[in-house]
Amino acid sequence: MRDFAANPAAGDPRYVLKLAVEGGFNGIVLQIGLAEKFHWEYAGEIPLILKLNGKTDIPSDAEALSPLHASVAEAVRLGADAVGYTMYVGTPAAGADFAQYREVREQARLLGMPLVVWAYPRGAAIEGKGGRDSFYAVDYAARVASELGADVVKVNFPHPEKQDQVPAAYRRPIDSQDAIAAVVRSANRTLLLVSGGARAGDAEMLDKARQSIRAGATGLIFGRNVWQREHEESLRLVGQLQRILAGAG
Amino acid sequence: MRDFAANPAAGDPRYVLKLAVEGGFNGIVLQIGLAEKFHWEYAGEIPLILKLNGKTDIPSDAEALSPLHASVAEAVRLGADAVGYTMYVGTPAAGADFAQYREVREQARLLGMPLVVWAYPRGAAIEGKGGRDSFYAVDYAARVASELGADVVKVNFPHPEKQDQVPAAYRRPIDSQDAIAAVVRSANRTLLLVSGGARAGDAEMLDKARQSIRAGATGLIFGRNVWQREHEESLRLVGQLQRILAGAG
Amino acid sequence: MRDFAANPAAGDPRYVLKLAVEGGFNGIVLQIGLAEKFHWEYAGEIPLILKLNGKTDIPSDAEALSPLHASVAEAVRLGADAVGYTMYVGTPAAGADFAQYREVREQARLLGMPLVVWAYPRGAAIEGKGGRDSFYAVDYAARVASELGADVVKVNFPHPEKQDQVPAAYRRPIDSQDAIAAVVRSANRTLLLVSGGARAGDAEMLDKARQSIRAGATGLIFGRNVWQREHEESLRLVGQLQRILAGAG
Amino acid sequence: MRDFAANPAAGDPRYVLKLAVEGGFNGIVLQIGLAEKFHWEYAGEIPLILKLNGKTDIPSDAEALSPLHASVAEAVRLGADAVGYTMYVGTPAAGADFAQYREVREQARLLGMPLVVWAYPRGAAIEGKGGRDSFYAVDYAARVASELGADVVKVNFPHPEKQDQVPAAYRRPIDSQDAIAAVVRSANRTLLLVSGGARAGDAEMLDKARQSIRAGATGLIFGRNVWQREHEESLRLVGQLQRILAGAG
Amino acid sequence: MRDFAANPAAGDPRYVLKLAVEGGFNGIVLQIGLAEKFHWEYAGEIPLILKLNGKTDIPSDAEALSPLHASVAEAVRLGADAVGYTMYVGTPAAGADFAQYREVREQARLLGMPLVVWAYPRGAAIEGKGGRDSFYAVDYAARVASELGADVVKVNFPHPEKQDQVPAAYRRPIDSQDAIAAVVRSANRTLLLVSGGARAGDAEMLDKARQSIRAGATGLIFGRNVWQREHEESLRLVGQLQRILAGAG
Repeated sequence: MRDFAANPAAGDPRYVLKLAVEGGFNGIVLQIGLAEKFHWEYAGEIPLILKLNGKTDIPSDAEALSPLHASVAEAVRLGADAVGYTMYVGTPAAGADFAQYREVREQARLLGMPLVVWAYPRGAAIEGKGGRDSFYAVDYAARVASELGADVVKVNFPHPEKQDQVPAAYRRPIDSQDAIAAVVRSANRTLLLVSGGARAGDAEMLDKARQSIRAGATGLIFGRNVWQREHEESLRLVGQLQRILAGAG
Repeated sequence: MRDFAANPAAGDPRYVLKLAVEGGFNGIVLQIGLAEKFHWEYAGEIPLILKLNGKTDIPSDAEALSPLHASVAEAVRLGADAVGYTMYVGTPAAGADFAQYREVREQARLLGMPLVVWAYPRGAAIEGKGGRDSFYAVDYAARVASELGADVVKVNFPHPEKQDQVPAAYRRPIDSQDAIAAVVRSANRTLLLVSGGARAGDAEMLDKARQSIRAGATGLIFGRNVWQREHEESLRLVGQLQRILAGAG
Repeated sequence: MRDFAANPAAGDPRYVLKLAVEGGFNGIVLQIGLAEKFHWEYAGEIPLILKLNGKTDIPSDAEALSPLHASVAEAVRLGADAVGYTMYVGTPAAGADFAQYREVREQARLLGMPLVVWAYPRGAAIEGKGGRDSFYAVDYAARVASELGADVVKVNFPHPEKQDQVPAAYRRPIDSQDAIAAVVRSANRTLLLVSGGARAGDAEMLDKARQSIRAGATGLIFGRNVWQREHEESLRLVGQLQRILAGAG
Repeated sequence: MRDFAANPAAGDPRYVLKLAVEGGFNGIVLQIGLAEKFHWEYAGEIPLILKLNGKTDIPSDAEALSPLHASVAEAVRLGADAVGYTMYVGTPAAGADFAQYREVREQARLLGMPLVVWAYPRGAAIEGKGGRDSFYAVDYAARVASELGADVVKVNFPHPEKQDQVPAAYRRPIDSQDAIAAVVRSANRTLLLVSGGARAGDAEMLDKARQSIRAGATGLIFGRNVWQREHEESLRLVGQLQRILAGAG
Repeated sequence: MRDFAANPAAGDPRYVLKLAVEGGFNGIVLQIGLAEKFHWEYAGEIPLILKLNGKTDIPSDAEALSPLHASVAEAVRLGADAVGYTMYVGTPAAGADFAQYREVREQARLLGMPLVVWAYPRGAAIEGKGGRDSFYAVDYAARVASELGADVVKVNFPHPEKQDQVPAAYRRPIDSQDAIAAVVRSANRTLLLVSGGARAGDAEMLDKARQSIRAGATGLIFGRNVWQREHEESLRLVGQLQRILAGAG
């Protein structure tokens, strides 16, 4: 679920929760407000990852920071199974980002809560080094999350063809299968979740999912681009993704 | 009550408290200073929502932040029935805003105090995306408050005709009844209070109140634009609003 | 006493303390350093208001903030009878100002210490709205201090003739007696202390003192402009002020 | 000892400590690193003033701040006899300066540790008002340290001939003896230590020392300009300073 | 190990750990993520220095700060033998740098954990004074770390030929042997580790290592430039470094 993105069609969180249960999802990610108001109806049916920070998409991302609005202790209170944190790798606001991340990581260790890090390259400097989607940026982000102690790291599928302005070592031909495999290695024993490709159509999305699982990624994560379709069609798509996850897709 | 707005006609808070009692209001919102000095005379007669932050309207709103000046614990000490917090959705100062909001929300949960969030789109970026009054901005603000854990959210009535520079999804014809209904849905199980329209005259204000209640809003909230009139006239207007709230207006 | 203003003629604090005792002042305001080094000799003879924040007058006031350098607990340790805090109403640094004010107000309540707020309009924005001395600015400052929970508020006497750039509601003819009366009302059950006028000569100062007391102000507060004169003359002036306070001047 | 100033000739701290013992100094000022590594050899022979903040001289002084790197509690652990703090009077960074100073002063009171304040006028604004060395600036700095609760204040000897841009009250002929006497008075019962003049030669330095002691200063403080000379010559100079301190020089 | 530097060839941390064990290294430096995920397999075989701060190399270094992401207490939990901290000497962000350093140093003392400081000259001002590699900059950095209480300080080998814009005292001919000897003296009883020269080839690197040890440095520290080569060649190089350390190389 995108952070606080206004979307009149986003509809009822109950619909998404129900779809997640029916589709056999491994978990759902909610901010604290929706978790408190909706998850209790589905407790025991679908694991909860409580997202602890978030931001609007209104101001520019030049100095991106996703401020903390909830604590690991509240995740425990709500019966969550893991906590989530968005880190903006490369942002000029890294001082504030690391400080709140540190609080989350230390509390997660103390309270026995797995920590999922959304590792997103962001900020003016990353835009000047090839942008947020390049193989370089995604690879770097995976490595940073691993070094900083994430249990699980979520990245977007890399675009190895974006080579303008990336460091020299990344300015070479590499196909997307090899790129995602390198990202898995950079995550160094940190479980990797991948998303992306939904905008380009189902075929491409399924292909990227396949490449990710083949490369050793632990799982896939999807937002409204996937579940905002007709109910039966959603379930059919989820079925395909399940087969890919099982290595049979 | 507008935050700290100097107005020589604002007069005696006792007048407003008395009007609130006579008019059968569900509550009155006061900053801590006026709560301490005036509410005790009306304790038990009119519920108190203690507003915990506020700002002057002197500097520009480009980086709007309403700094905290009181705590939930003080609301308990004063016998308040709820606490209020103004969040400036989209402000570049979101880092500071979320940090103090987080403290308020966590303390409100611990101390069993309902939390009312004034969700106001503000800041240079929102002005560049259609301004604070658009359907897009109001809808977004309601959703953010809901995701962040407000128990009640207060918004201004949206202006769906303001479509310049708003995101594409909002650049379509929609009447005000449908717009406020969408805002109620975006508030997702968060009780919605609506204000606005007072400047354009009583007829329009009552019409907007009617549309809000019809759309499923929980209540209405008004400031000096309403109660700054002759006493009998104030009571007559309040009577009309009461009928609207009861679904009979 | 002006905050940290270097003045080779300011002389010995003992002189001022002695004058305060002889003149029957209700209290003296000292920063912690002078309180610790000088007030003990006069303890029991003249009440102490410990000023908890202060600033130099060296940098510009565009983002004025008076940083905290002492706590309410220290005021208790020193036997002070009240604490003082300077708030710069309208400053862009309001975030930091409110945060430290909040600490002071909460501690003052807990420790039973009356809180005197110097409410001074300051900062680039107030200069663009008619300046710090206008009726608008002083009235607004009194109201803010009242809403934020001051027990006593200190303002400078307003200049109602300064109407350039003030909000429309204040751009009307009003004499100084009516202006100070409006300020007393805006202070809403917060005791008001007034200073000012000393620079224009004794006659004008006494006249403003008279208008303040007539309007319902609780008291007067003066700095070196008053006590920096020959001893007997100081006492004579203080005598006149005492008569004004008693309603007989 | 200048804060962290790289100087290949600064040599072995043992040399300085030995000289301080032989010369009968009343104390030596060290940052925590050198205190931990060197002072233990001379404990009981030369009192230690632990300097709690410091800064490099690499960035410009326009927004000078000397950040805290040690606490009063550590001074107690190391057996120090006093703590030292550098305050940059007039800096735009006064908010941060006062906040850390406040912590130091409160802890010093609680732990019974005398507090020596290096009161140095600094920052873009003071450069626009005649600079850091004027009589005005030094006098102001002494007064600020006194008002803020220093037990001892250290200033540089004022240059009363620097009158460009200083406030009008200071733009008058005054000789250096009268200037340092005024500074002693501005320190108001705060013990005053003076340094300076070393760059202009020994004769001038000794003359300024004499004027300071004559004016009522409590002591003198010197850095490497004094002890960076041949051993016997250092001791001879220290002997002269001792006689001045005893009122016999 | 460079902070979070994306490098597709950086490979498996197990390889580096194994090489460190085989080569008889005195320790390995890891951020908390890799320490948690990889060091347990080698516990007891190779000492761990837990690096407590780090930064990406994406934004510019003009206001360099390496934010803290782990605590000394966690180093104890992980069985680390020392903690590491990168300080950017001369950065405009020194206020934040010193504040977090202070926390680390105080906790390291309390928990008995040796503190290794990477003292790196950085920031716009140092670039304007001859850059990060000059003898002046390295010497200054060693001294700052020593004064601030590092147990061990790590510097890069100085380039005494870089004299443009350095302070006058450093604008003189000095060979690299004398320069590193001066740095050892500036470290004043703080153990000095040196790295550098790897980019220019093995011969130069070994020569600089020899000069460092001869000057009294305690040890050498190397990153991927050294161990990113064929296994046997790595071990041969490490053997040479071991002989140098033993004074036999």
